[in-house]
Amino acid sequence: MYFYSDNCGPMHPNVRAALLAADEGFMPSYGNDPIMDEVRDQIRDLFGAPDAAVYLVATGTAANALGLATITKPWDTVFCTSLAHINVDECNAPEFYTGGAKLSLVGSGDKMTPEALEQRITGYGTGNVHTSQRGPVQITQVTEMGRLYTLGELRALTDVARAYGLPTFMDGARFANAMAALGCTAREMTVDAGIDALSFGGTKNGCAGVEAVVFFEPDHAWEFELRRKRGAHLVSKHRYLSAQMQGYLAEDTWLKAGAQANANAARLTAGLRGVVGLEFVEEPEANMIFATLPRHAHQTLKAGGAEYGLWGDLEGDPDERVMMRLVCDWSITHAMIDEFLDLARGLT
Amino acid sequence: MYFYSDNCGPMHPNVRAALLAADEGFMPSYGNDPIMDEVRDQIRDLFGAPDAAVYLVATGTAANALGLATITKPWDTVFCTSLAHINVDECNAPEFYTGGAKLSLVGSGDKMTPEALEQRITGYGTGNVHTSQRGPVQITQVTEMGRLYTLGELRALTDVARAYGLPTFMDGARFANAMAALGCTAREMTVDAGIDALSFGGTKNGCAGVEAVVFFEPDHAWEFELRRKRGAHLVSKHRYLSAQMQGYLAEDTWLKAGAQANANAARLTAGLRGVVGLEFVEEPEANMIFATLPRHAHQTLKAGGAEYGLWGDLEGDPDERVMMRLVCDWSITHAMIDEFLDLARGLT
Amino acid sequence: MYFYSDNCGPMHPNVRAALLAADEGFMPSYGNDPIMDEVRDQIRDLFGAPDAAVYLVATGTAANALGLATITKPWDTVFCTSLAHINVDECNAPEFYTGGAKLSLVGSGDKMTPEALEQRITGYGTGNVHTSQRGPVQITQVTEMGRLYTLGELRALTDVARAYGLPTFMDGARFANAMAALGCTAREMTVDAGIDALSFGGTKNGCAGVEAVVFFEPDHAWEFELRRKRGAHLVSKHRYLSAQMQGYLAEDTWLKAGAQANANAARLTAGLRGVVGLEFVEEPEANMIFATLPRHAHQTLKAGGAEYGLWGDLEGDPDERVMMRLVCDWSITHAMIDEFLDLARGLT
Amino acid sequence: MYFYSDNCGPMHPNVRAALLAADEGFMPSYGNDPIMDEVRDQIRDLFGAPDAAVYLVATGTAANALGLATITKPWDTVFCTSLAHINVDECNAPEFYTGGAKLSLVGSGDKMTPEALEQRITGYGTGNVHTSQRGPVQITQVTEMGRLYTLGELRALTDVARAYGLPTFMDGARFANAMAALGCTAREMTVDAGIDALSFGGTKNGCAGVEAVVFFEPDHAWEFELRRKRGAHLVSKHRYLSAQMQGYLAEDTWLKAGAQANANAARLTAGLRGVVGLEFVEEPEANMIFATLPRHAHQTLKAGGAEYGLWGDLEGDPDERVMMRLVCDWSITHAMIDEFLDLARGLT
Repeated sequence: MYFYSDNCGPMHPNVRAALLAADEGFMPSYGNDPIMDEVRDQIRDLFGAPDAAVYLVATGTAANALGLATITKPWDTVFCTSLAHINVDECNAPEFYTGGAKLSLVGSGDKMTPEALEQRITGYGTGNVHTSQRGPVQITQVTEMGRLYTLGELRALTDVARAYGLPTFMDGARFANAMAALGCTAREMTVDAGIDALSFGGTKNGCAGVEAVVFFEPDHAWEFELRRKRGAHLVSKHRYLSAQMQGYLAEDTWLKAGAQANANAARLTAGLRGVVGLEFVEEPEANMIFATLPRHAHQTLKAGGAEYGLWGDLEGDPDERVMMRLVCDWSITHAMIDEFLDLARGLT
Repeated sequence: MYFYSDNCGPMHPNVRAALLAADEGFMPSYGNDPIMDEVRDQIRDLFGAPDAAVYLVATGTAANALGLATITKPWDTVFCTSLAHINVDECNAPEFYTGGAKLSLVGSGDKMTPEALEQRITGYGTGNVHTSQRGPVQITQVTEMGRLYTLGELRALTDVARAYGLPTFMDGARFANAMAALGCTAREMTVDAGIDALSFGGTKNGCAGVEAVVFFEPDHAWEFELRRKRGAHLVSKHRYLSAQMQGYLAEDTWLKAGAQANANAARLTAGLRGVVGLEFVEEPEANMIFATLPRHAHQTLKAGGAEYGLWGDLEGDPDERVMMRLVCDWSITHAMIDEFLDLARGLT
Repeated sequence: MYFYSDNCGPMHPNVRAALLAADEGFMPSYGNDPIMDEVRDQIRDLFGAPDAAVYLVATGTAANALGLATITKPWDTVFCTSLAHINVDECNAPEFYTGGAKLSLVGSGDKMTPEALEQRITGYGTGNVHTSQRGPVQITQVTEMGRLYTLGELRALTDVARAYGLPTFMDGARFANAMAALGCTAREMTVDAGIDALSFGGTKNGCAGVEAVVFFEPDHAWEFELRRKRGAHLVSKHRYLSAQMQGYLAEDTWLKAGAQANANAARLTAGLRGVVGLEFVEEPEANMIFATLPRHAHQTLKAGGAEYGLWGDLEGDPDERVMMRLVCDWSITHAMIDEFLDLARGLT
Repeated sequence: MYFYSDNCGPMHPNVRAALLAADEGFMPSYGNDPIMDEVRDQIRDLFGAPDAAVYLVATGTAANALGLATITKPWDTVFCTSLAHINVDECNAPEFYTGGAKLSLVGSGDKMTPEALEQRITGYGTGNVHTSQRGPVQITQVTEMGRLYTLGELRALTDVARAYGLPTFMDGARFANAMAALGCTAREMTVDAGIDALSFGGTKNGCAGVEAVVFFEPDHAWEFELRRKRGAHLVSKHRYLSAQMQGYLAEDTWLKAGAQANANAARLTAGLRGVVGLEFVEEPEANMIFATLPRHAHQTLKAGGAEYGLWGDLEGDPDERVMMRLVCDWSITHAMIDEFLDLARGLT
């Protein structure tokens, strides 16, 4: 019953198979492997962007920090939500990689509205050397609270960015989950929605550790390559990144795995609706569930072997409600879900 | 005939087996996997340093840059050779990670002498706010020209560092090759030789991508963890790093692979002695061979399918001598070596 | 009628006299001038801190950025208000000098409460490598809205900082105005109130350009000196900074000038109370006045030659209320104030 | 007898007069003062560069670091001499302001040759992500050893830079001394000689603390303004910088002061030729003299009250030769020079 995160499961069989197939003989290093050529073409096709610059790195923070830094000046401020991964979970990596840019928080939650974004942008004047300068708009899809921006919501945000001449970057650590949930194409959720660059996550969805960074505007390509090397993120035996991505892209593995993760979360959600005392914090839309339960219920669940994130201590007032996060990846089994639900239902 | 680099070969079977064994079920992320606990203990045992702080990262540049930065202030200068990887091959990663420290080059080659080191150190005064401040001494073992520091040579360098109160860092990207060549213990080549911290390479010696960073003084541990996260080098599915290192350490795989690489290079070296017109730039001591040949010989070799590094153009004056680098990893076969030698011998 | 800022007036006669007196013959550079020795002692005496490290720089942003950076790690977050100068008016200088630290905003205004501060601090856990780490608490006295923290309020904030082991830094760009208004000693407003380090402003209060940075804990001294040099803020003909501070300290010039500035603002405030349609945004407590007037009133004032800051356009709906900032330094004359008031009273 | 440095003397009367004249009434801050408009025009005229971007800062290190950083990428290397101020005397300020660029040293002395420069440049390939990237060529005029580049020598260096598409930056801390010595125009020594940007020093030549940064290509203007503010080098009461530069430029004060400093050094040099045992390290060409004397001679000079720089200890083998630096600014009197010579002549 492991619902702690989608970075705790094994490789998807297709990813594993591709990794093993690549583990033979000699191959050029540092991204010059032929598998990367294939992967680059496939990703360009996927996004309908034949000129896109496509790169691989081993961590999601690297994808976000390097990708954002490439379109941010050190004196800029990045517009993002308070709960954005880049604000909350990366130990100042964006500030480090940008050379000291600031993050300006839009709202207090996981989703930004066009109105709040515009207000935040116009809070910074132009031509004024004293303030931070207006920089990129960063959008996380799926959000940190497991919610989605619809295509219309994305477009509304990027329209604001466009109106002020600001580039847009999507944190797509759970890109596949979002696309599966929205039922749209990769191009619709990015190029057509006004996104300039993104990270395309693999690690949380069946890979061992690989994320693509995609710039639809290839002018940034060489600078990104220098930033990646300088950041120590150019992997020497790059074939092992390429091969993971190759297996991930083959046979729509990535999309199917994202859909499977969502379906797992939906099954879990449906079951949780019958749990007395449980309240959803947000209506789950992808593969993450945020809900509250009284502390005594958590104590029982944890004692029963359930693993998940808890926003508070396990010890304390037994009736106090404490927030939990349950995450499903593609590898969660129905048996695990049902075992958890049985445990949860016995709580009342 | 792939002698281009030791980052072009496949995983060692033991590393591959450990990676696959770890690819099952759920495991805590971000270095909290139980395999890492095992690996940490093994590395402490290996170096006879029960308190050492031990971390894993995915690239050699990350190991060097993060490790060095942890013991360098932004206003310091690092003492290293002109040919050091951190000076020549990392696109300013050390400067980036240290927040703008300088590298002061000791000599013009791949090895430093105690005299040259001391002269360089004393070139910077103390208590003078105008100059860079004296920082760590960085030593590469095996050097970039494939040579070794003896234990005595290492001790002589660290004695100088110690005399000036400066910490020492070893770039051990080819640590195993060095140890196999010297026939000493890991502790003799580090703790006993006055090394304070090092990178312990896996990638060039049979791993897919993993390097350990070891601090014999654990005071730096927490700062390193923050630097690693901020640098986007804390891998989420960390078990895949841990497992590589587990397989690498098991049954002395690392040392045997290093010895095999050296033996391969020795076989190649022995054969090359009979090649008319070939001159060794340095007497090979580990798994790298630097030699010169007339350009026409390179043209024949390349036309015959040999892959290796060339310090110059393939086109030009046919009689001009051009330097080549031949590198052997553990996976190079006798057949490949002999095929290359046959080709080379036919050159005269 | 120049109420635009307190950085627009001339030198105080005492400062000017000291500057001129120092402008003779030869003197050691880079802070080794004998005037600095005198100034250092005087500042230590002023704060009752015989061991304090005392330095001079030429700009307020340098004092804040260098001072804060000395007690902040790159992975830390600084706690300050939303309106803090370091957040709003320094073009990411704090982020630059700290090497990429973050600012965490406490509340939405110019003053922080102990409750809000504590909530913000505890929003960051400890021992968690993913988040920014808890860093210094930064307090601006006089605030950006012209208000004061009482000694009790300061103590309450620094008690929170102390409880979490965090250092405190005071932006004292208007230190003299604050002290004059509170009627306390320099020691009471700093050391006794739990402040660890501060900038002690001269520029806005009669100097041409000099700020002292004071660390009550001298352990930071050498690091600050290196940071100052590296930041290009170690002035070579330092005597001209020292001399300004010498004149500023002599005969309590600084305190009298601050009191005069406050008195000027009080006279202006008293007069403004009779201006129909004017509303104070905050009750003025030092030398700055924030108030709103209908736009048409601003148009009349500006047409009449008044200079001050306006938070909005001069053109637009004539009845819309627009915020103004009026700042008095010591050099503002009664005649200027009365002229402005006459103009303002004619507005109704 | 104060020959320690040209940053130890008083303000030139013309500079002082302009500073005092500006110290009256209210004036816009942050560079918006009308004096700056006048100064900008004068500097553009001086260089025959009507579009040049012109800025003032308070220190030479700021002028160098901000100016260079504006035309350097963090992954670049700057080409300069081993003895360049930016390499030796700025505590990693260039590395800090560039965000971690490297300095590549051309030769081991104070002057570079076109051949050595080209060799250093071509030592870095292009399109190779592993190495530092080729960045600006930095030239110091007058050099750190008191020597000059002729106009032809400057042109030869900038021709090399141009051939590789690299920008050029001149450290003109002693620009006036160089121009006075060469007898050329400001335009001849910069624009016509292929210089793209420079610092134009005032501090060492009669100002209290002001340097201009000039970009002949104004595309860099806004970025420089942001960098200056972020670096905390935008002075609020900017009129005091403007006024110094105004007085410095008026009546060719700057050029006359530079010529006077050179004449003072020439008088000193002529006298030193008669001092038995003294050997010039370089033939003096501007306002600095480097020579060696036996230690016992230094002991006598120092005991006699002479102040100058010494490259070694005052105690030790009395016959060992130790290098000295004697610097003259415009304010050195004939009496001081003659007193020093009398003392020196009595040494034999």
